[in-house]
Amino acid sequence: MTKQHSQPNSANLGIAIIGLGGAVATTAVAGTELIRKGLQDTTGLPLAEHDQLDLIDYGNVYFRGWDLFEDDLYAAAANHRVLSSEQLASVRPALSEMRPWKAISNRDYCEGVVCDEDSKGTHREHVDSIGRQLREFAGEIGGRVVVINLASTEHALDVSDQIYQTVAAFEQALTQNHPGISPAMLYAYACIQHGVPYGNFTPSRAADIPALRRLAAEKNVPVAGKDGKTGQTYIKTVLAPALRARALRVRGWFSTNILGNRDGEALRQPKSLENKIGTKGDVLANCLGYPVEDHLVKINYYRPRGDDKEAWDNIDIDGFLGQPMQIKVNFLCKDSILAAPLAIEIARCLELASRRGQGGVIEELGVFFKAPMTGDGREPNHNFTEQHLTLLAWLEKNSRVASESGRENAASDSVA
Amino acid sequence: MTKQHSQPNSANLGIAIIGLGGAVATTAVAGTELIRKGLQDTTGLPLAEHDQLDLIDYGNVYFRGWDLFEDDLYAAAANHRVLSSEQLASVRPALSEMRPWKAISNRDYCEGVVCDEDSKGTHREHVDSIGRQLREFAGEIGGRVVVINLASTEHALDVSDQIYQTVAAFEQALTQNHPGISPAMLYAYACIQHGVPYGNFTPSRAADIPALRRLAAEKNVPVAGKDGKTGQTYIKTVLAPALRARALRVRGWFSTNILGNRDGEALRQPKSLENKIGTKGDVLANCLGYPVEDHLVKINYYRPRGDDKEAWDNIDIDGFLGQPMQIKVNFLCKDSILAAPLAIEIARCLELASRRGQGGVIEELGVFFKAPMTGDGREPNHNFTEQHLTLLAWLEKNSRVASESGRENAASDSVA
Amino acid sequence: MTKQHSQPNSANLGIAIIGLGGAVATTAVAGTELIRKGLQDTTGLPLAEHDQLDLIDYGNVYFRGWDLFEDDLYAAAANHRVLSSEQLASVRPALSEMRPWKAISNRDYCEGVVCDEDSKGTHREHVDSIGRQLREFAGEIGGRVVVINLASTEHALDVSDQIYQTVAAFEQALTQNHPGISPAMLYAYACIQHGVPYGNFTPSRAADIPALRRLAAEKNVPVAGKDGKTGQTYIKTVLAPALRARALRVRGWFSTNILGNRDGEALRQPKSLENKIGTKGDVLANCLGYPVEDHLVKINYYRPRGDDKEAWDNIDIDGFLGQPMQIKVNFLCKDSILAAPLAIEIARCLELASRRGQGGVIEELGVFFKAPMTGDGREPNHNFTEQHLTLLAWLEKNSRVASESGRENAASDSVA
Amino acid sequence: MTKQHSQPNSANLGIAIIGLGGAVATTAVAGTELIRKGLQDTTGLPLAEHDQLDLIDYGNVYFRGWDLFEDDLYAAAANHRVLSSEQLASVRPALSEMRPWKAISNRDYCEGVVCDEDSKGTHREHVDSIGRQLREFAGEIGGRVVVINLASTEHALDVSDQIYQTVAAFEQALTQNHPGISPAMLYAYACIQHGVPYGNFTPSRAADIPALRRLAAEKNVPVAGKDGKTGQTYIKTVLAPALRARALRVRGWFSTNILGNRDGEALRQPKSLENKIGTKGDVLANCLGYPVEDHLVKINYYRPRGDDKEAWDNIDIDGFLGQPMQIKVNFLCKDSILAAPLAIEIARCLELASRRGQGGVIEELGVFFKAPMTGDGREPNHNFTEQHLTLLAWLEKNSRVASESGRENAASDSVA
Repeated sequence: MTKQHSQPNSANLGIAIIGLGGAVATTAVAGTELIRKGLQDTTGLPLAEHDQLDLIDYGNVYFRGWDLFEDDLYAAAANHRVLSSEQLASVRPALSEMRPWKAISNRDYCEGVVCDEDSKGTHREHVDSIGRQLREFAGEIGGRVVVINLASTEHALDVSDQIYQTVAAFEQALTQNHPGISPAMLYAYACIQHGVPYGNFTPSRAADIPALRRLAAEKNVPVAGKDGKTGQTYIKTVLAPALRARALRVRGWFSTNILGNRDGEALRQPKSLENKIGTKGDVLANCLGYPVEDHLVKINYYRPRGDDKEAWDNIDIDGFLGQPMQIKVNFLCKDSILAAPLAIEIARCLELASRRGQGGVIEELGVFFKAPMTGDGREPNHNFTEQHLTLLAWLEKNSRVASESGRENAASDSVA
Repeated sequence: MTKQHSQPNSANLGIAIIGLGGAVATTAVAGTELIRKGLQDTTGLPLAEHDQLDLIDYGNVYFRGWDLFEDDLYAAAANHRVLSSEQLASVRPALSEMRPWKAISNRDYCEGVVCDEDSKGTHREHVDSIGRQLREFAGEIGGRVVVINLASTEHALDVSDQIYQTVAAFEQALTQNHPGISPAMLYAYACIQHGVPYGNFTPSRAADIPALRRLAAEKNVPVAGKDGKTGQTYIKTVLAPALRARALRVRGWFSTNILGNRDGEALRQPKSLENKIGTKGDVLANCLGYPVEDHLVKINYYRPRGDDKEAWDNIDIDGFLGQPMQIKVNFLCKDSILAAPLAIEIARCLELASRRGQGGVIEELGVFFKAPMTGDGREPNHNFTEQHLTLLAWLEKNSRVASESGRENAASDSVA
Repeated sequence: MTKQHSQPNSANLGIAIIGLGGAVATTAVAGTELIRKGLQDTTGLPLAEHDQLDLIDYGNVYFRGWDLFEDDLYAAAANHRVLSSEQLASVRPALSEMRPWKAISNRDYCEGVVCDEDSKGTHREHVDSIGRQLREFAGEIGGRVVVINLASTEHALDVSDQIYQTVAAFEQALTQNHPGISPAMLYAYACIQHGVPYGNFTPSRAADIPALRRLAAEKNVPVAGKDGKTGQTYIKTVLAPALRARALRVRGWFSTNILGNRDGEALRQPKSLENKIGTKGDVLANCLGYPVEDHLVKINYYRPRGDDKEAWDNIDIDGFLGQPMQIKVNFLCKDSILAAPLAIEIARCLELASRRGQGGVIEELGVFFKAPMTGDGREPNHNFTEQHLTLLAWLEKNSRVASESGRENAASDSVA
Repeated sequence: MTKQHSQPNSANLGIAIIGLGGAVATTAVAGTELIRKGLQDTTGLPLAEHDQLDLIDYGNVYFRGWDLFEDDLYAAAANHRVLSSEQLASVRPALSEMRPWKAISNRDYCEGVVCDEDSKGTHREHVDSIGRQLREFAGEIGGRVVVINLASTEHALDVSDQIYQTVAAFEQALTQNHPGISPAMLYAYACIQHGVPYGNFTPSRAADIPALRRLAAEKNVPVAGKDGKTGQTYIKTVLAPALRARALRVRGWFSTNILGNRDGEALRQPKSLENKIGTKGDVLANCLGYPVEDHLVKINYYRPRGDDKEAWDNIDIDGFLGQPMQIKVNFLCKDSILAAPLAIEIARCLELASRRGQGGVIEELGVFFKAPMTGDGREPNHNFTEQHLTLLAWLEKNSRVASESGRENAASDSVA
């Protein structure tokens, strides 16, 4: 599990996180710090095992970001109780001196979390301010910067609205401070506008509207999303294709899960929950090749677990001669422990894409997401194994380029 | 689930089953009959969904075979309680008139089942007799015949013994009525000798010894095996590669299962159980890329379930920062319902191999087995999805040949 | 399990069921018939094992009742798919000739089920009509009659309304055809008014309002309810007191269940669900002695199971030194198979109470109910074992009376 | 959960533990220390909630004991990893200065654990030495002393042997240094001989042979045992009686569990396992009133869990009309966290018995044991709830005595 790259890429990578004080973000920051110090191996980091990929080394990844809360990262991490006391103690100095930038606050969008007052300033001013922050961060680390959205889920939007359809309409709405433009969209727009790759780990729409997908393609900025595939959906997209391979017919799939962290609390808000469940819905039919009418997905806020999370799936299948069987899967997992390494890998891949001159939606990153974005909004593939093979092929191809043409200067065309 | 082949292959296929009166065999026979009558669709038959494969149509599959018990197949099926009363009633006429041929009986090998006295006759006489039966069967149906071993597990053998190493040594032992040659080996040898493809669905060694693998290659007779991958191992070889893809480190995997059918009863015999667990052992390390010292597999004979079977797996994994998580899978399955369609598909594939002039171990059928045979005895791949893709590629390639060159006479070079 | 009473009470008992065509009712009717014919033992009937109780013998129990559907009971039972084909065939003659009386229909109360038009007639006319039907039934069987409510759940009511508080207010509302009086209340009132014991197996309020509890006491008519304790709550009230006995502190209890029968469909209606969950809520705190804030109960309509039902409970407990542990219970049950025998036992107990001259709420029957009624509306005891011991003591006391004083004429003071 | 006794008994109690360095013992010692310091409440201590019982206060309980290992208790506790780092740090000073007395070592009995050489000295010398140690301990704390056996399981013995049947035969064997007398028996004999109450938390025979039961009665010394009822059997004896109360017929009960601590390692030894499973066997039939042929109990040593333990039970039941249902219970527990408080409560109860002048087998403590001892060796009651009620009644009766007659001097008649 702890193999080293044969030729580690020693350029620096800056990850700017929206929601830097959250459980996933602080876990990513602390984990990277522990790896850098040699106190932790790379277990849980999916791409660590693959040699000779031209990705930035974990030891060269640095973090900054925004949050509504002003706590330093040590206080935030201690509060989330994801790390063990020993792990927390080891990273105390590094985390104590990190404080998030002030995030854009808009009470219309963040219902489940504390969000006392709206940020001052126009949409345009926010976009400019984000650009300045990213430019400064790139300068500090002397390398490329990627933005990852780990903020709480925003509520569902009517994405058929006119303002989301074209770049022109979106930019006009921006100028008019249109209330339909959510904070997540502001960040996504700012990134694309300033040439910074953007990965969306949340179910929020953000860059996944026609206007921004098109803009990313036009500006040739890599974007990816949305909604990290961590627990129940990961297992679902592993099992469902395997059932299909055996022609075991799924008659019903009941998925319930209980979680007690800030994410779960946000999901108590019906509108945010709708957004979340929406991104889980099509997955099953896609993996099986037929719709399952009795596919239920339930998410419950249940505090005794804190950041731990438990999923229980019951699958009713018909086998040969129509005879019924059942599979039940009980996953006792840790949300942030599953999510944090994926967020890091997404950033590393987006950096590679950017370095290779690729832009628009990087569809090959679909394995990381519950609702993979596609360049033209068509339905993505959800089959986990196929997604995994697609990613590996893309990584190998883009790493070969590197070893053939020599290592480019990783920081040369960073934030414009 | 009920797609039809665009050009169904209308030749006949005869499947001669060792253990014809067993739960899996009677389910296969009854199921094929129900499909032929249009009373059942092809749910559970893995290759039914794939169009344009040049496999013999399910409707053209016919059965014969051997058993220690003399019951007609209706009585046997009623006794196994796998089929619903309605299903049983529908196939009563067809099954009532089928009686197994007398199987070779050897008390040294079949400990868990009734096996009052040893068969009379020499090894050579048995081989000849099997050949005659297969020839007659081929004549009756006017098509190719394939043998599938569904008999109870024989106990483990010391396969390093000299007699198993070369064709010459094996044939000499045969002539000497050597007690080291088990009934399953006699059937396998007879098949290969008479040019009849042989598929081994049991954990018994049968054709999986150097002497017989070599003979099958020399005679160019397709063989495949061993030990059908139906329940717990199927799920294990689906999940383990997916855990590896996420770099989730498996620290322990505890698998227990309870079953109450004749198969379970046979496994109460320590020697047979050893054979069974042996075929389950290497699978996990193979899928993960590293050994798991705490990999336990327990099989328990527990009568309340009859042919139903229940597997419970507990998987201990470490994620990012070494933090522990658990996955538990509870599979309430039906042994014969999972196994019967695989036995049918193996036979259809072996027939195709034979028709295409392929012989020796057909490694591409590995997806069907817990302990896939390889031509040279090296370790097979156990990753379910990779095995599945391998099979599909083989089928497509061998079906393309057909549509290009025109349909050969499926029965032309049947039993020599 | 099949012990016989030493002195079986050979009088007849008539059970008139509201919802006679439902799954629970048809199972009770068919089951009693199978026992009468000697084709089934008394497994699942809680009081069958106890000798020398002066309860009416199962063989002397006869059924009639009301339903919105007009199907004969054989058609209804076949449709519910609870009985095996063999069981169904055995009772076909007896069930085919039974048809329900027309039930009172009121679209304001039965949302989830087909209920095309409201019944004609005033409240008072319905009450009279019910009285006539019960009198006739008692005459037919020559024994006491008891009414059991097995109809679909009515939606929740504001029970603080004035009309439910006193007998006078209720009777005035009755005369005025007040829409606040639900069908279940009409049946309950009619029973009490006509001296017929009434047991409420549904979560509907029915007799559980101050006015009717008082009337039952005044008229000395036994009533009991409400909401049969069959699956998840039964297990909960067994486990929770045992956790308390070990001082294991419950920090959270997550209960979810999936079911696909008519009952489940009715519960898709938010108002009916509210009624159902309301009766489940207080149970846990009562058994533990302290409230559990994270006690969640979720009910999901999920069709693949039909009448089968599955409950999954996750219990988070703290042990010594505050260390967390978890218990998970997965109950794969059959709703009607659990409910039907309880409905029969409730009727037998109510008949005994009536025969012994007891009236008002028979609190000793609490073990049968999720929300046991109490005479004065105070909180009941939910501890299953304590309830069970209370019932046994009551039965023994009331059976001793019998053997001491000689057997009374069981039918002497039936329906007035 | 943290109620205080209205009149806490402020005498001191000394608990001398056989196996003081084990996981259960160090948890008990550390837990008592944490409670004494006010850092932990009494969660998990079954008798903490009951007011006005005349038991010695938890704050006045002190420990000493024997072990084969010489580590101080802090080192031992750190090694067992049961306590959190915070808890461990809080008790470091107290535990660091405690070291076990040298335990009697006999390689014939302790197979699974390190046990390099046999203790020197005769049986009689050991008995005398134990007596001296207990007398000194009693003097130190100025209160009664009770011995609790928490050592690893000794292997099964042929208890029909002559030497175990009478006091005379046993004492003769003792004098002859008979190898049939195990270390656990030596401790038990020494306790009884010196008037010190003895509780056996292990499956070892110890005092549970006719000779020692009789001696305890003759000498009027309270003894209790054997095999603490902590996890799977606790749940089994809760559920089984509840199934019986509903006449749900148990057709099979499959219990498996995985554990990775020293106890589990000892159980890898077939003879010790036999002892363990023996004490689990009769329980089910006793609770149900009929034998269950398919009752399987499997214990597996599985290291990833360390002291954590996981039990999985599958229960097959038949309900009304013989229809099958299933209950599955998955208990993720912590062995020492469940066991330690029971060991403390047993000691407190034995002290009370001693103070009240009771001797012989104290059957009322049966709720604490998997295989409760009875005075005459007859079968005990295993029903958890009934055992619990029996204990409470005994405690109340013996506490009433106290409040009526005034508090006796708790230490007056300590070790003779």
